[in-house]
Amino acid sequence: MTTQFDPQALAEHYAKATPQEILSLALEHFDDLWLSFSGADDIVVLDMAWKLNKDIKVFTLDTGRLHPETYQFLQHVREHYGIKLEVLSPDHLALQKYVSEKGLFDFYQSGHGECCGIRKIEPLRRKLSGVEAWITGQRRDQSPGTRSHVPVIEQDQAFGNDANPLIKFNPLANYSSEEVWTYIRMLEVPYNTLHERGFASIGCEPCTRPTLPNQHEREGRWWWEEATQKECGLHAGNLIAKN
Amino acid sequence: MTTQFDPQALAEHYAKATPQEILSLALEHFDDLWLSFSGADDIVVLDMAWKLNKDIKVFTLDTGRLHPETYQFLQHVREHYGIKLEVLSPDHLALQKYVSEKGLFDFYQSGHGECCGIRKIEPLRRKLSGVEAWITGQRRDQSPGTRSHVPVIEQDQAFGNDANPLIKFNPLANYSSEEVWTYIRMLEVPYNTLHERGFASIGCEPCTRPTLPNQHEREGRWWWEEATQKECGLHAGNLIAKN
Amino acid sequence: MTTQFDPQALAEHYAKATPQEILSLALEHFDDLWLSFSGADDIVVLDMAWKLNKDIKVFTLDTGRLHPETYQFLQHVREHYGIKLEVLSPDHLALQKYVSEKGLFDFYQSGHGECCGIRKIEPLRRKLSGVEAWITGQRRDQSPGTRSHVPVIEQDQAFGNDANPLIKFNPLANYSSEEVWTYIRMLEVPYNTLHERGFASIGCEPCTRPTLPNQHEREGRWWWEEATQKECGLHAGNLIAKN
Amino acid sequence: MTTQFDPQALAEHYAKATPQEILSLALEHFDDLWLSFSGADDIVVLDMAWKLNKDIKVFTLDTGRLHPETYQFLQHVREHYGIKLEVLSPDHLALQKYVSEKGLFDFYQSGHGECCGIRKIEPLRRKLSGVEAWITGQRRDQSPGTRSHVPVIEQDQAFGNDANPLIKFNPLANYSSEEVWTYIRMLEVPYNTLHERGFASIGCEPCTRPTLPNQHEREGRWWWEEATQKECGLHAGNLIAKN
Repeated sequence: MTTQFDPQALAEHYAKATPQEILSLALEHFDDLWLSFSGADDIVVLDMAWKLNKDIKVFTLDTGRLHPETYQFLQHVREHYGIKLEVLSPDHLALQKYVSEKGLFDFYQSGHGECCGIRKIEPLRRKLSGVEAWITGQRRDQSPGTRSHVPVIEQDQAFGNDANPLIKFNPLANYSSEEVWTYIRMLEVPYNTLHERGFASIGCEPCTRPTLPNQHEREGRWWWEEATQKECGLHAGNLIAKN
Repeated sequence: MTTQFDPQALAEHYAKATPQEILSLALEHFDDLWLSFSGADDIVVLDMAWKLNKDIKVFTLDTGRLHPETYQFLQHVREHYGIKLEVLSPDHLALQKYVSEKGLFDFYQSGHGECCGIRKIEPLRRKLSGVEAWITGQRRDQSPGTRSHVPVIEQDQAFGNDANPLIKFNPLANYSSEEVWTYIRMLEVPYNTLHERGFASIGCEPCTRPTLPNQHEREGRWWWEEATQKECGLHAGNLIAKN
Repeated sequence: MTTQFDPQALAEHYAKATPQEILSLALEHFDDLWLSFSGADDIVVLDMAWKLNKDIKVFTLDTGRLHPETYQFLQHVREHYGIKLEVLSPDHLALQKYVSEKGLFDFYQSGHGECCGIRKIEPLRRKLSGVEAWITGQRRDQSPGTRSHVPVIEQDQAFGNDANPLIKFNPLANYSSEEVWTYIRMLEVPYNTLHERGFASIGCEPCTRPTLPNQHEREGRWWWEEATQKECGLHAGNLIAKN
Repeated sequence: MTTQFDPQALAEHYAKATPQEILSLALEHFDDLWLSFSGADDIVVLDMAWKLNKDIKVFTLDTGRLHPETYQFLQHVREHYGIKLEVLSPDHLALQKYVSEKGLFDFYQSGHGECCGIRKIEPLRRKLSGVEAWITGQRRDQSPGTRSHVPVIEQDQAFGNDANPLIKFNPLANYSSEEVWTYIRMLEVPYNTLHERGFASIGCEPCTRPTLPNQHEREGRWWWEEATQKECGLHAGNLIAKN
């Protein structure tokens, strides 16, 4: 990482920039740069990044409970773009212990925290330790409760620290769901077929459901919990920042 | 029908009225008043009318090609509201001739006109002949191409005429899809389960498909045809009025 | 019909004949011969007949409540074999009256008799009046309770009478379900995709369900009724014969 | 393990015994006895064992690619029987390496060997090392190619060895699919809902498909491969024994 990279100043400077301008900045400044892809409508940020640099490095978190359609889509993306797609899995000893003790649907009773912690956060932490910068598909309009202040560039305090600073790019922060879908349809970008069956936001199979017409997409995630807790922890900074 | 009923003047007077005010007007003025229910999100107008008058007369057009879920919903509505629900079927001789000659999916080649003519328009015409007034769930926002000028009250020139005037009430003309769905969710009105699988607008099974997030609901109907032809003829006046 | 055709004597003579031999006999003796096709695994008898005579006349009963997959299959068969496929519909006045009065799922309470009577028997009677002979896909193994004595050839007493004799051919009477499916797979005959989702026997959508492994196919039909009533009336002779 | 346990002699002695008699023998002789449950119709052996001993120890292999319905069924079984259900997961480092390099559907190209090796065999080997005896739901009729000689009791040469002998009980070896399903229906044993949708044999989601009526259940597994390779390796002894 170049020492002169000042995320706060750049976030202000790029506050109104296009996703492509933000991605270009990221690609220019960092070699050890990874794009986190979830298999949902963040395909847009992957498509944009890939068009700027065919060697973009991409990883995804295979929690072991994704929809069959999501696994198919991940493979389709891998082949369509000719990228390698690093697939991260949860630590099996922690997973076995959790599931054997609490069963396969504990999150409905105890909340999604422990399960997301094992299936998503630990593998992500493992991946990001030592990485200089990452790119996400987060948008402010995805969650009025927790994402309304997402900056386009930030220093990641959840997975990095002052000794090992980690820069986080959110090039779609200002994009609306409508813009994302206009992009997908106009540019004929591949998408997860679950989006044809009422799914807007997509996560793990037991924790995602389709939404009704005009229902906010976040209501399709962890619907048995309070809106302010509808983050898996991948973007823990959103919650920290609010306190 | 009371002779002094002036649809054009009342349409202006009620242009900004609530759906309930328009329904009250209809119920006050007409005994021979029928609500046309399609088994989709027009459940809202049925719910509103029923709350004003438990004896509201309702009919539906069973084209013989509805989704299994729509038949289940029609029955659920019949039982939930305790209404009779008149179910109209297409003339079997015309239907047999058409389907035997042109097959079961002719509309994909020849357009939906002939099929809708037999399965929807003829039974509707049969029903409305001799009826004084009817109520629909049409909304302006359902179809930018054909419904953007739907008045709240009109004289129906498609199914009535000067000798046998027919008044048509469109109490939801000004309602948005968002308002419809807020009503359904807030008042816990029953809805067609297809709405949980990506369907916004619902018609016959082979001629309806789910829409993607942020795609206009009308793109889920007769998608192989031009936008300006996306009316089955039930609301033929919308097309006449535009010429 | 040739006067010398003696169904009982021929039934004995052809008791062990192949389906093709029985079909050849039918095709030789009758011009006014119709094959009744339901859109299920009776595709085998249609395939056999068509291979003997490309001009085989075929009809089907569109009850108005078939599965979407069955409508697609009927169309596929129409195109694959290049046949006309006469599609019969229920009398709309009788249908409207029944459904408006008793609802769309009355059969679950009152039994399937009245509904089958309107949707299947009346159109079939209309079709067979004046016809000399028809071919079905009935098999003895389809229903231990009602079909175990189906002869390969019979005089139809349910839809014909002595003044207007009607001959009924059941070329698959001796075939087992296993033979039917071996035929379909070996000869790559098209089949209803419902058969890929656990459906063995296929009728109307609300009155058909998939069966479990090793469950008799007839348990997927009118499962809320007694086994001895599991006939829609198309083959009413089976019930008459037992008394 | 008691030293005098002679699997070969007992296999002969119990060759015609009921599943319950074989299970009783297993429960008598071994404390460190585990039942392997796959989430399919081997629920029958679990039900039988649990009725003999409510403390029966059960494990399952969560490959990370099971059907959502199978995860639901595993949880249902856990709650219905009040058992702990040990859930084993594949080593995440091996899994990440395999999937990142070869993609998420490599088995369609390279065969299922490597994937089953990582997702099933390694966790099973880990579990069985040090265990004295295990119980499976294998049946001879499941696979004419590979399981036709499965004994009711055997010394497991695939996961045990002479230094650490492992006894394997196959109490359903002589049972037919028909008997399994009669047991499930008569005793109202819970079953995986996939069995209601045409699935007979059930494994991982991408490697399992429904079968047609009268198609052998094994044709629903790894259908792109030769019949003689349709074993995941859990019962590797079946292949060894044939050479």
